[in-house]
Amino acid sequence: MELYKNKKMLEEKVFKDPIHRHIHVRDQVIWDLIKTKEFQRLRRIKQLGTLYLTFHTAEHSRFNHSLGVYEIVRRMIDENFEGRDTWNSDNRLVALCAALLHDIGHGPFSHSFEKIFNTNHEQFTNDIIIGETEVNRVLSTVHESFPAEVASIIDKTHKDKLLISMISSQIDADRMDYLQRDAFYTGVSYGSFDMERILRVMRPTEEEIVIKESGMHAVEDYLMSRYQMYWQVYFHPVSRGGEVILNLVLKRAKQLYQQGYAFNTIPKHLLPFFNENVSVKDYIRLDEAVIYYYLQEWIEEDDEILSDLARRFVHRDLFKYLPFDGSQITIMELTELFEQAGINPEYYFFSDSYSDLPYDYDRPGSKSNRKPIHLLSRNKKIKEISSQSVIINSITGKKRQDFKLYYPKEKIMNIQDESIKTKILNLLNELH
Amino acid sequence: MELYKNKKMLEEKVFKDPIHRHIHVRDQVIWDLIKTKEFQRLRRIKQLGTLYLTFHTAEHSRFNHSLGVYEIVRRMIDENFEGRDTWNSDNRLVALCAALLHDIGHGPFSHSFEKIFNTNHEQFTNDIIIGETEVNRVLSTVHESFPAEVASIIDKTHKDKLLISMISSQIDADRMDYLQRDAFYTGVSYGSFDMERILRVMRPTEEEIVIKESGMHAVEDYLMSRYQMYWQVYFHPVSRGGEVILNLVLKRAKQLYQQGYAFNTIPKHLLPFFNENVSVKDYIRLDEAVIYYYLQEWIEEDDEILSDLARRFVHRDLFKYLPFDGSQITIMELTELFEQAGINPEYYFFSDSYSDLPYDYDRPGSKSNRKPIHLLSRNKKIKEISSQSVIINSITGKKRQDFKLYYPKEKIMNIQDESIKTKILNLLNELH
Amino acid sequence: MELYKNKKMLEEKVFKDPIHRHIHVRDQVIWDLIKTKEFQRLRRIKQLGTLYLTFHTAEHSRFNHSLGVYEIVRRMIDENFEGRDTWNSDNRLVALCAALLHDIGHGPFSHSFEKIFNTNHEQFTNDIIIGETEVNRVLSTVHESFPAEVASIIDKTHKDKLLISMISSQIDADRMDYLQRDAFYTGVSYGSFDMERILRVMRPTEEEIVIKESGMHAVEDYLMSRYQMYWQVYFHPVSRGGEVILNLVLKRAKQLYQQGYAFNTIPKHLLPFFNENVSVKDYIRLDEAVIYYYLQEWIEEDDEILSDLARRFVHRDLFKYLPFDGSQITIMELTELFEQAGINPEYYFFSDSYSDLPYDYDRPGSKSNRKPIHLLSRNKKIKEISSQSVIINSITGKKRQDFKLYYPKEKIMNIQDESIKTKILNLLNELH
Amino acid sequence: MELYKNKKMLEEKVFKDPIHRHIHVRDQVIWDLIKTKEFQRLRRIKQLGTLYLTFHTAEHSRFNHSLGVYEIVRRMIDENFEGRDTWNSDNRLVALCAALLHDIGHGPFSHSFEKIFNTNHEQFTNDIIIGETEVNRVLSTVHESFPAEVASIIDKTHKDKLLISMISSQIDADRMDYLQRDAFYTGVSYGSFDMERILRVMRPTEEEIVIKESGMHAVEDYLMSRYQMYWQVYFHPVSRGGEVILNLVLKRAKQLYQQGYAFNTIPKHLLPFFNENVSVKDYIRLDEAVIYYYLQEWIEEDDEILSDLARRFVHRDLFKYLPFDGSQITIMELTELFEQAGINPEYYFFSDSYSDLPYDYDRPGSKSNRKPIHLLSRNKKIKEISSQSVIINSITGKKRQDFKLYYPKEKIMNIQDESIKTKILNLLNELH
Repeated sequence: MELYKNKKMLEEKVFKDPIHRHIHVRDQVIWDLIKTKEFQRLRRIKQLGTLYLTFHTAEHSRFNHSLGVYEIVRRMIDENFEGRDTWNSDNRLVALCAALLHDIGHGPFSHSFEKIFNTNHEQFTNDIIIGETEVNRVLSTVHESFPAEVASIIDKTHKDKLLISMISSQIDADRMDYLQRDAFYTGVSYGSFDMERILRVMRPTEEEIVIKESGMHAVEDYLMSRYQMYWQVYFHPVSRGGEVILNLVLKRAKQLYQQGYAFNTIPKHLLPFFNENVSVKDYIRLDEAVIYYYLQEWIEEDDEILSDLARRFVHRDLFKYLPFDGSQITIMELTELFEQAGINPEYYFFSDSYSDLPYDYDRPGSKSNRKPIHLLSRNKKIKEISSQSVIINSITGKKRQDFKLYYPKEKIMNIQDESIKTKILNLLNELH
Repeated sequence: MELYKNKKMLEEKVFKDPIHRHIHVRDQVIWDLIKTKEFQRLRRIKQLGTLYLTFHTAEHSRFNHSLGVYEIVRRMIDENFEGRDTWNSDNRLVALCAALLHDIGHGPFSHSFEKIFNTNHEQFTNDIIIGETEVNRVLSTVHESFPAEVASIIDKTHKDKLLISMISSQIDADRMDYLQRDAFYTGVSYGSFDMERILRVMRPTEEEIVIKESGMHAVEDYLMSRYQMYWQVYFHPVSRGGEVILNLVLKRAKQLYQQGYAFNTIPKHLLPFFNENVSVKDYIRLDEAVIYYYLQEWIEEDDEILSDLARRFVHRDLFKYLPFDGSQITIMELTELFEQAGINPEYYFFSDSYSDLPYDYDRPGSKSNRKPIHLLSRNKKIKEISSQSVIINSITGKKRQDFKLYYPKEKIMNIQDESIKTKILNLLNELH
Repeated sequence: MELYKNKKMLEEKVFKDPIHRHIHVRDQVIWDLIKTKEFQRLRRIKQLGTLYLTFHTAEHSRFNHSLGVYEIVRRMIDENFEGRDTWNSDNRLVALCAALLHDIGHGPFSHSFEKIFNTNHEQFTNDIIIGETEVNRVLSTVHESFPAEVASIIDKTHKDKLLISMISSQIDADRMDYLQRDAFYTGVSYGSFDMERILRVMRPTEEEIVIKESGMHAVEDYLMSRYQMYWQVYFHPVSRGGEVILNLVLKRAKQLYQQGYAFNTIPKHLLPFFNENVSVKDYIRLDEAVIYYYLQEWIEEDDEILSDLARRFVHRDLFKYLPFDGSQITIMELTELFEQAGINPEYYFFSDSYSDLPYDYDRPGSKSNRKPIHLLSRNKKIKEISSQSVIINSITGKKRQDFKLYYPKEKIMNIQDESIKTKILNLLNELH
Repeated sequence: MELYKNKKMLEEKVFKDPIHRHIHVRDQVIWDLIKTKEFQRLRRIKQLGTLYLTFHTAEHSRFNHSLGVYEIVRRMIDENFEGRDTWNSDNRLVALCAALLHDIGHGPFSHSFEKIFNTNHEQFTNDIIIGETEVNRVLSTVHESFPAEVASIIDKTHKDKLLISMISSQIDADRMDYLQRDAFYTGVSYGSFDMERILRVMRPTEEEIVIKESGMHAVEDYLMSRYQMYWQVYFHPVSRGGEVILNLVLKRAKQLYQQGYAFNTIPKHLLPFFNENVSVKDYIRLDEAVIYYYLQEWIEEDDEILSDLARRFVHRDLFKYLPFDGSQITIMELTELFEQAGINPEYYFFSDSYSDLPYDYDRPGSKSNRKPIHLLSRNKKIKEISSQSVIINSITGKKRQDFKLYYPKEKIMNIQDESIKTKILNLLNELH
């Protein structure tokens, strides 16, 4: 049994990768996990969901990113931690598996699905690792308790906090991979930071990874990259416009199903979701190809709203958006006016808010329970980073929030009743 | 009418792009073409088909590449050709449209489809531009003869050979984009060459684009990049292994259909293809999402071969491959032995050959009818490039061919009859 | 006369450049300025002075950087400003000349020279442009008042504040070039920001360059790059160690000269500097080659201190450094102890302080008189950037200061008197 | 004694490097060699001599490159060779030292100096390693025979051919570093190839480094990069124009000295060179700073030719050049006409020829005695690479040669005798 845990392949497998140049796999367990159908399925789920509708080159998959996180954790261990007193070599494999599988429970367009169908990718991550899957079979071969141990790192209940911090903390392998990868694929320059340096200045402790004081500036740069990627890419309003439509079309399909609507093509893969009773097997069968298949079928459906929203998503005919101040009064007024004009506000009017907190930590007066990033000084003292860095101090706990309204411009312009139309346009103009 | 041709948008649209940094659209016609459903559909077709099964990051779409080719042609014209005697400004828009639409007729996995279903992406390119489509509607608004003119550049019948050479020649915008783009996404270093320099040394003539003599070395480098990308990426045997399985599974489905097999899920989008009677509308409805949907359904089908091959493709359980010398005798012997062992060679044994000719031109003794790359000397003489470059001369007309055999290793290992098994293994061993 | 101002060369001159890819020169005046001996002299002056002793690849010259600043200003004008109401085309040439020549008055190791010999590179910039030089001859050919106009942009007295802001403001061509260039040559990742975007969002006004609101994040990123480059590169303590030695050796040479010391090799190019009576001609004759020549000669001089310091610089045998809290008492104590131990503290003990203010502007309570960076909102209102950006607000006016002590470790270790030695070591240890 | 050989430093020293990202030094011997004055002197010698007069950013030093070659050899050994049967771990240090020191004997502008003063940088490399130098002192501390062993690798007489091939062969660490480094600093795209791959496919044998067959394409790409760098960069005619002037000015100075000319400033560092009697100590004192010092002094000398040529070099006023067919008759005619016109052809007329052989090997009919690049096939057979690669075969033994004439254009234009002037201009025109 233990042999499998340590088994190395005769020849190292090397994946070419534009972010890490090469991803190296020597452990048989890792190779066997990559070959499972649950992991291969990540090839059919985009890392950034609908974002490619704005950043047209952001077409990379979660398969991509998962290998990347694995590689970063592998390098942390093999190039830095191994040989240090505070690192337990015995944890190498479990850390690698957790890194590789941390996103295994993601489905297609997870954010929209969770919102509309009350699913939970974290729950499914656990279920795939623990349940009857190929992934579970590989992990169980290491040891019967191994799957649960892997899962407990990902869901942050493992007793070894260091292992958790490697993939889930404010400076972890997950973020370091996705910031660089998403920047590369979107073609923006903001995601770059000196990961090589960060990998060299990390030090394992019992509780977490800490950063040698001399690496503080590299962490500053990393946090700024994160901040920039959020506002320039992830929260880009056009991009969120894709998700808005997807939310609405899924919501419509679910509502129609619940009302007993007779679909021309029955979306059989989605029925468990409509019923909010989804098994692991149902979940695994779903990928973006399946969703796109139904979306294209729905264009031909008789329900006008379903058909229109599906067409808008597939052919990228997005809503217009406006920034606004978050006032509920404006929203209520507009909702009413839309109804008077015969435009269903439930599906054609959407207010979106999003926020980001670039860095924070649990402290008196803070609502955050995040663990801080700690620096290790020359004389081995531990210091919270914002107490040392002017830059980081300045952004600590500073939440930034934005509001946007989405609506179909041409439907407004086609309103027959000139008085309602004028009222709507005036209200929208005021928002500018 | 003419107004639309010259109409510029109030604000330039800018696509961020990792290859060209930015893609600039000012012409209303181009913007309207990008918004058509036929063009948006290219987002759901990978530029490199099944190659991502080997180069896991090669997930970029034809949408991507089409914008890139447009941008290169736009720069050729706006930054170099405009203002020269040999360039007719009036051709700007038609050249841009042809560049943008040159791949509009590609379907999902075109190579496999053309082989199995006798379709032809060049024919569909023409049909989409000429037929009843959104693309046609945009082009016709420029002028009723405009669609036909765009199509004639792409199918190389246009009387202005210069326009044709911009997107279809041995040094055209198409190749310059895909070599760089495919290299970027696969993470290999081979596709890089100095496109900036090539764009500066191009000169339009009545017949073609020629290259200023001082740019010869940049062209050498470009041809070498092309050669390397072919052998290191496009012809990579593992990658072709993905296409092998796809070919076989489509072939099986078609055969089953023709034999009257009752599918659990009827692949309705594929029926026109099975019947080899495909309308433009049928064709446009097809994308990779649809194919993947059926492939996943087929895993559950009762036919063992269909189910097995579909599973192999979706979960990436590819055949093993061996190089061989192309001998037909070996293939016949192995085919017979496979049959004796009860392994259907029609679906489990595949011989693949592929070749590349990095550069050639129509000349006495050559079987190629390609147009040469011409250099323009200081004293305005035109010279074929291989007469000036030792490097290019050395590869001119040098075809390179490779053969590979593909088979499922574990099926061989499971053969019960030891004598047949041994014979097969021996024959395969000899090929090494 | 006016003809020369507008004269374009038959063929554009193109400099290959790793930062801007290519630097384009079409104007005859610019080309003629580049050919002057005063401008060619910048090839023999390193952009980063002694920094290459730490960042061994930082060997690039001011010639390099000056061309880069020219190219950025050229692109600002040709790709953005030209055609806008708020830009006066007539100012194009004077802006280009000011950009190209903004550093023409720099000598070798300017910082050390200014400190030791009371020279002033800004004064010499003016003198070279106004005085009897090749540069002046070229500029005067444009118009007799042209040199003075160029000089007045560089010394910030020109009445057109927009022109000044292009090369001297908190977001100018000078900084945009050197941050990227210095990052490239040192091999650090911190200097990167999206200059392409900044160049597109700049807008000329009567008073200055303003930034379209949508470009705020790009400016944030630029200011962070600047901050990082200061602390990671320019203020790197080892690097400053090179300058420390250079200061000391020049100070020693000057002191010896003033004391009537008989040099074996008379440093004739330096005599005007020793006498603090430097003509433009004297100044132009000086470059790094000359300084290195004397430094190598001084290794052979009889004065032990001069010889030792010269050797240390040429063969890179730098002092050790320690951070300290800036306390004058410690410095006085150590100075006394060094003297007791027979180590001349004037040449072997150096306290260095340096500070940076990443962004600030003239406002109540601020000691800075810098002009702010202004954003231009959609409705054409002007807003100071720190009022809009949480990140920038957080660093506005936040000065950061550091202190370091430099001393020759081996000289301390060789002190014979154990009691003095122990006292010194104890004091130094406390500083840690 | 042996302890020093294996001594590691407490903390690794890391040099930031734009080519290799970081250069890692753990061995005390290497660190001590870097600190010697002979090695530090390489900071004051440009890797590409006068090339920066054409590629203005090619200002990097031999110090730079020497560290790079060391790093490549270190990676060859530590990441690939160590642990293989065919690699003797005991050779690690000697290989690293030879890599670091392979260029230690280069002086400023070595090519010109060797031509004019009959020096030999290979001889000086040996002398510096064997003679009374700091380098020798460090090496001798390892073992008294150690300096000679290091020298014998560099001069290719060491009995272990593998060690020689690591730094001197057609695919060695020297070339791999300089191709990439020179490409990076000049800003051209041609020098890129996949060194990471080459480092992985190298295998040590008793005789040499061989390349695994699967790495053939990476070697093709490397050889093409080399070919391109030669013709696009190293042999660029403008660049050679800088060397032409340098040759002529040194030749003039030497001739004047031999004729007893009284220099205003005696070039004392050059006297041993004028007398062709140069000691190691004389040689080490020379660097580019010294040469530039004299060149600037010479501008003020009374000899018109010396003064003019020195001015041309320092202020970059190069000769014009023309390609020609190598005909001696033309040269003789022009030489005579120059003399008739009163322009000294010895200093104002220069014919230059240069050639490159991208790849060759010792074989019947070849004049080359180079060792081939060998491939290692799967079945462990050794094959010469051009027998396997169409591309390499096509360039094997193909020498390319070019001729250029250099002359001062304005001197021709100023010839008073119209008939002579016309004859010269006609002859030059014919060359075009």
